[in-house]
Amino acid sequence: MNQKHDFKTIGTRPLRQDARDKVTGQARFGDDVTLPNTLYGAVLRSPHAHAEIVSIDTSKAQAVAGVKAIVTAQDFPRLRPGGPGDIANDNLAVDRVLYHGHGIAAVAAVSLSVAEAALKLISVRYKVLPHVLTIDDAIKPGAPCLHERLALDGQPANVYERIEEQFGDVDRGFAQADIIMEREYATPTVHQGYIEPTACLASFQADGLSSVWSTTQGHFPLRDSIALMCGMQTSELKVIPTEIGGGFGGKTAPYLEAIALMLSKLSGRPVKMRMSREEVFRCAGPGAASRSRIKIGVRRNGRITAMQAQLFYESGAFPGAPLGGGVRSIFSAYDVENASIEGFSVLVNKPRIRAYRGPGASQACFAVESLLNEICTVLAMDQIEFRLINAIRDGGRNIGGSFRELGLVACLEAAQSSPHYKSKLGPGQGRAVAAGFWRNGGGLSSASIHLHRNGFASVLTGSADLSGTRMSLEMIAAETLQLPIEHVHAEVADTESVGFTGVSGGSRTINATGQAVTRAALNIIDQLKERAASGWNVTPDQVTWREGEVRNNTRDESLSLKDITRLAPGTGGPISASASASPPAGEGPCFAVHICDVEVDKETGRSSVTRYTTIQDAGMAVHPAYVEGQYQGGAVQGIGWALNEEFVYDDQGVLQNPGFLDYRMPVTSDLPMIETIIVEVPNSMHPFGVRGVGEAPIIPPLAAVASAIGHAIGKPVTRLPCSPDEYPSDHSRRRKRSGMTAKKRQQRY
Amino acid sequence: MNQKHDFKTIGTRPLRQDARDKVTGQARFGDDVTLPNTLYGAVLRSPHAHAEIVSIDTSKAQAVAGVKAIVTAQDFPRLRPGGPGDIANDNLAVDRVLYHGHGIAAVAAVSLSVAEAALKLISVRYKVLPHVLTIDDAIKPGAPCLHERLALDGQPANVYERIEEQFGDVDRGFAQADIIMEREYATPTVHQGYIEPTACLASFQADGLSSVWSTTQGHFPLRDSIALMCGMQTSELKVIPTEIGGGFGGKTAPYLEAIALMLSKLSGRPVKMRMSREEVFRCAGPGAASRSRIKIGVRRNGRITAMQAQLFYESGAFPGAPLGGGVRSIFSAYDVENASIEGFSVLVNKPRIRAYRGPGASQACFAVESLLNEICTVLAMDQIEFRLINAIRDGGRNIGGSFRELGLVACLEAAQSSPHYKSKLGPGQGRAVAAGFWRNGGGLSSASIHLHRNGFASVLTGSADLSGTRMSLEMIAAETLQLPIEHVHAEVADTESVGFTGVSGGSRTINATGQAVTRAALNIIDQLKERAASGWNVTPDQVTWREGEVRNNTRDESLSLKDITRLAPGTGGPISASASASPPAGEGPCFAVHICDVEVDKETGRSSVTRYTTIQDAGMAVHPAYVEGQYQGGAVQGIGWALNEEFVYDDQGVLQNPGFLDYRMPVTSDLPMIETIIVEVPNSMHPFGVRGVGEAPIIPPLAAVASAIGHAIGKPVTRLPCSPDEYPSDHSRRRKRSGMTAKKRQQRY
Repeated sequence: MNQKHDFKTIGTRPLRQDARDKVTGQARFGDDVTLPNTLYGAVLRSPHAHAEIVSIDTSKAQAVAGVKAIVTAQDFPRLRPGGPGDIANDNLAVDRVLYHGHGIAAVAAVSLSVAEAALKLISVRYKVLPHVLTIDDAIKPGAPCLHERLALDGQPANVYERIEEQFGDVDRGFAQADIIMEREYATPTVHQGYIEPTACLASFQADGLSSVWSTTQGHFPLRDSIALMCGMQTSELKVIPTEIGGGFGGKTAPYLEAIALMLSKLSGRPVKMRMSREEVFRCAGPGAASRSRIKIGVRRNGRITAMQAQLFYESGAFPGAPLGGGVRSIFSAYDVENASIEGFSVLVNKPRIRAYRGPGASQACFAVESLLNEICTVLAMDQIEFRLINAIRDGGRNIGGSFRELGLVACLEAAQSSPHYKSKLGPGQGRAVAAGFWRNGGGLSSASIHLHRNGFASVLTGSADLSGTRMSLEMIAAETLQLPIEHVHAEVADTESVGFTGVSGGSRTINATGQAVTRAALNIIDQLKERAASGWNVTPDQVTWREGEVRNNTRDESLSLKDITRLAPGTGGPISASASASPPAGEGPCFAVHICDVEVDKETGRSSVTRYTTIQDAGMAVHPAYVEGQYQGGAVQGIGWALNEEFVYDDQGVLQNPGFLDYRMPVTSDLPMIETIIVEVPNSMHPFGVRGVGEAPIIPPLAAVASAIGHAIGKPVTRLPCSPDEYPSDHSRRRKRSGMTAKKRQQRY
Repeated sequence: MNQKHDFKTIGTRPLRQDARDKVTGQARFGDDVTLPNTLYGAVLRSPHAHAEIVSIDTSKAQAVAGVKAIVTAQDFPRLRPGGPGDIANDNLAVDRVLYHGHGIAAVAAVSLSVAEAALKLISVRYKVLPHVLTIDDAIKPGAPCLHERLALDGQPANVYERIEEQFGDVDRGFAQADIIMEREYATPTVHQGYIEPTACLASFQADGLSSVWSTTQGHFPLRDSIALMCGMQTSELKVIPTEIGGGFGGKTAPYLEAIALMLSKLSGRPVKMRMSREEVFRCAGPGAASRSRIKIGVRRNGRITAMQAQLFYESGAFPGAPLGGGVRSIFSAYDVENASIEGFSVLVNKPRIRAYRGPGASQACFAVESLLNEICTVLAMDQIEFRLINAIRDGGRNIGGSFRELGLVACLEAAQSSPHYKSKLGPGQGRAVAAGFWRNGGGLSSASIHLHRNGFASVLTGSADLSGTRMSLEMIAAETLQLPIEHVHAEVADTESVGFTGVSGGSRTINATGQAVTRAALNIIDQLKERAASGWNVTPDQVTWREGEVRNNTRDESLSLKDITRLAPGTGGPISASASASPPAGEGPCFAVHICDVEVDKETGRSSVTRYTTIQDAGMAVHPAYVEGQYQGGAVQGIGWALNEEFVYDDQGVLQNPGFLDYRMPVTSDLPMIETIIVEVPNSMHPFGVRGVGEAPIIPPLAAVASAIGHAIGKPVTRLPCSPDEYPSDHSRRRKRSGMTAKKRQQRY
């Protein structure tokens, strides 16, 4: 599907510069930085899901040989609730623990074993409070309330946010419908499952610049949060991003960094902290559970007349539910005249939710796309034909916003003509299609470019590289400067070395940071023109930049970039440029269409994905191999979410499966090769037509897998994961979930 | 002497941001960086002063458990002689060892002890060659020749460079003189004596960016040298400067870095290397020994009619003598019509010379200022009066160049009216004055400034901070941006994070990098004006920047820098600027006048400095405390050079005093408080009037101390150090130097 362009570098597949280091273990991740005299920190965590902290006595722990500092929330500035105040309260509880695993105190000692031994000597008195673990329980009148201050409508409640969106008149729409279908759906709490646990090293410096090394998706926002939490100015703190072993939205806030920095301040030594895998599962912001009710009306010809949704997202112990992502995306793929959405965010005594790839959209898409597929069955209509009838097109406007050029129809057509969709299903197999939408992020990004004397270029950006964005940004610089890719090196710069740049998330990086890089490169070209013009004694408007050269329009001569950098010492000094960009979110919206085939074992109820194809509009695939990787990685995460993954809590709010043995993510041997089709409908708001590609691939799989299983077993699947318990089938081992522990259930697979 | 300015920050004395870390041991120097799996490297060094390498057998060393890589010169690209080729050959000998301690092979192993054990198993066969250790021996016909390729006039010789400078007609000048005096002088090889031995960590990365951490005065030139030596592009290598525990010119080239990087490449692991103190003395470029003959003619009225000099500098085993520094400065303080200089650089079988603060000038100044003081004695003329008669003044032109505004006369007048000069000498004491000149460096510098949302600024430069330049550059940025100093943080950026910047040396940093910072700040101000103007719907020329605010000229409103940064996300994104500067050397020439009192013990010949004052033109003292520190530090180093310091070789070319016990540098208890007077004659070529201050303070002390001793003992001192052996006195223990070993001589003190 790759369209032809005049690009020399963009659209090619150069080897990524971090690949060898990552596969040979030489890349430096969060735990790989050490300083002389480093201490090791550990966190005491709550054994209760909800309790008042009556007192904390650290005196025995303080007396342990090798313990150099202990902190509790009392050692930090008391911030207002919300934002960094909530993060601080989540890192180390202020007055009250709100979930099992909530941090209470931290120790820095000469070794981790000393620190852990000291933790056991910290004596905490609690007054245990009743807790709530589910949306249903949390919204009941009289439910235990997590944050009284978040009362909506004057009533203390765990619903702290409600969003309503209207478009057209749903009552009229449903009145026009021939068929109306309505169903409830549920998705569990899931974890991003990044391989690298969160880790950091902090070194406080009294007069100078304190340093924090962290594996993070956004070192600038992280710096700002840590500084506020520790009562510092942002200019007193430098955050240096390490390589990051996966984030997927989960590494967008400090978990340990502010604690480590305060321990470093108190001890006068660097402090290293890292979470165990168990801590990651128990405390490091998972993806939100959801409940939803969808109602859709259609005419017999397949035209949707009305769509209605009620969405609930779990937020965990602090506000943070991805309700906006759900509301903005749930109906955005369709050209529908009448729609309404009502959404709620609900606090429960579980860890605070963090973003998980396309946050909120997968859960919403699961519901609406599943119901649409049911409607197709009722209408006896092909799932792609049906979507083509209703798909939003260029210039369309719906509840998700108004759109310029859009790739949904192109994706649906590509899906329709794909070998996969034309293939036949085997016995016991089911197939389904689902579409997903992500509006894509914008926001603040900065970039600097420094030219070397030999004509090479260093490109600095502030975007943490989750997925190869360094290389793609390098390619954008190379393309703009007309340099061979080998002559450009892009690096993720620390917070002192480049301007403010937002978090790497929401598919914003190649959009926003790509624009900053392009601007910096264009500024470089302006300078090249000025230098050349000055040498030729002409004005900059008498020269032209073409094919990597500045050409003199007044006579036949030219200077290459390299010629100009070689002469730069004598023409004003080295050539550098800094630039920033701040595009609004939603400028490059993106659609994905997935096709899923499954086979369900009639004896055991086990479902296997037998074939899977992702079709997605990349706008312009800067590095097609990375784009394919994003499509595949997102699809696999979504398949895991659909088939296996869930947080299982006991009735005391204790997570029962905090590890990869019991929290089952799909591995290579579980899956077929994920097929990919890159569609390219350029985004006219980006200099290279790019649309972000990171989020959309995880949005359709929940519905695609569940509908395919529904197709295979002849019944809709409405609760995830698609455990055999959850759907009626003819196998004999079906049991109620409540009758089994998580461990036992896992063992069945 | 501080003149009044309107500056808010420049001229104040804020606390330096690195002070606390440095005094509490938290600052991170070259040896303080570690990575997982780091290996330790060690170098096998030549036991001969001059020998052919017949063969190197590393097989036994390779077989040692824990040895991961071994390199010799054969493992590196063979570079052309000169520049990086010479550095490579100096780091690891190609075919021939040229001095005792010359590197031959290096081992990387799991520990330093394993590496050192393996070194002993490397078998090297040599063919020993005759060697030369002194200028006199090296220039004799038939002397052993170090580099045949460097023949001057077709004759293989150890003189590889000859400079002649003429001004006026010296024969006519001497004919006009009433008195002509001529004398020979000699100064020894000395060491910069930095506290921190050279150290680095190298991590080779095959596809990405290799990293080297190093304690260096210039990480950009270091990067370029290492890249060339290792056969890489500069864009494949990042050099990260650590804090530097002194350099003084000695840390301006790779000693271990390329070796460590190649060992890292071969072993696939990071490699740390550091020199022992003994290695530093034996191998890490000391300051040049010199011999000179000076002839000066004067009239009875004190007017100099002619000056003539013949200068010889030792270069060690490779070209590198600071002849240019000597030639440019020797007569530059004086308005003389007739002068001639002939200078020679001479190779000897000793370590390659590196710069030592004001390179070449101290040696030359010792000779000319000593002779001028002798002439004052003959003329019975006050040393300052005499110099005032001959001092070069604004607009003057002599053999050193042509000058704009100059501070020599102001410095002499300040010296004349100083309490020190008006004080009386005690019995056995002597006093002398000496003037010194340094033209000050220019060259390439880059800077970037990134504004934070809260209106704070991060300032990045590429200049290694030897002496507090970070703070001074921070002050320049704060002054230009009209920000409080607490709102600005300057940092030394690595080679990827800012544009190319030359070595910190030659008193160039606050000149050149200060100009780059100023330009970046002015660019920031332009952007602030554009942002504000755009918000007000006026053009940028309708607004004014004044007192930290952009003011709207069309109506009464203004926006502070902080207002604009707060709004920046919505007005185009974060605000950053990058700029460079490339001022020519010599734009801000600098003079220093020193007054020295000494007391000589008649029994032992021991000399003590009893009072010492430095008077120097700073142009504008950005941070007066740092400027005073430079004056004091340079004076102390010069006093040590004059009184005690010298490399003592045996006849086999083996350094006998490679340690601080036997190489005696002055410590605090040896000296009185060094008094300082800052003169400020602004340099019109610098935005803040700055002249570099780092070099000049070390230039007068050799002559000031030696002449003061000469005054005390009634005989000129013409050889340094001023050991009692070297000058006639009435004490009874005088012996010939050749009759004693270094150890014995040291013990006498």
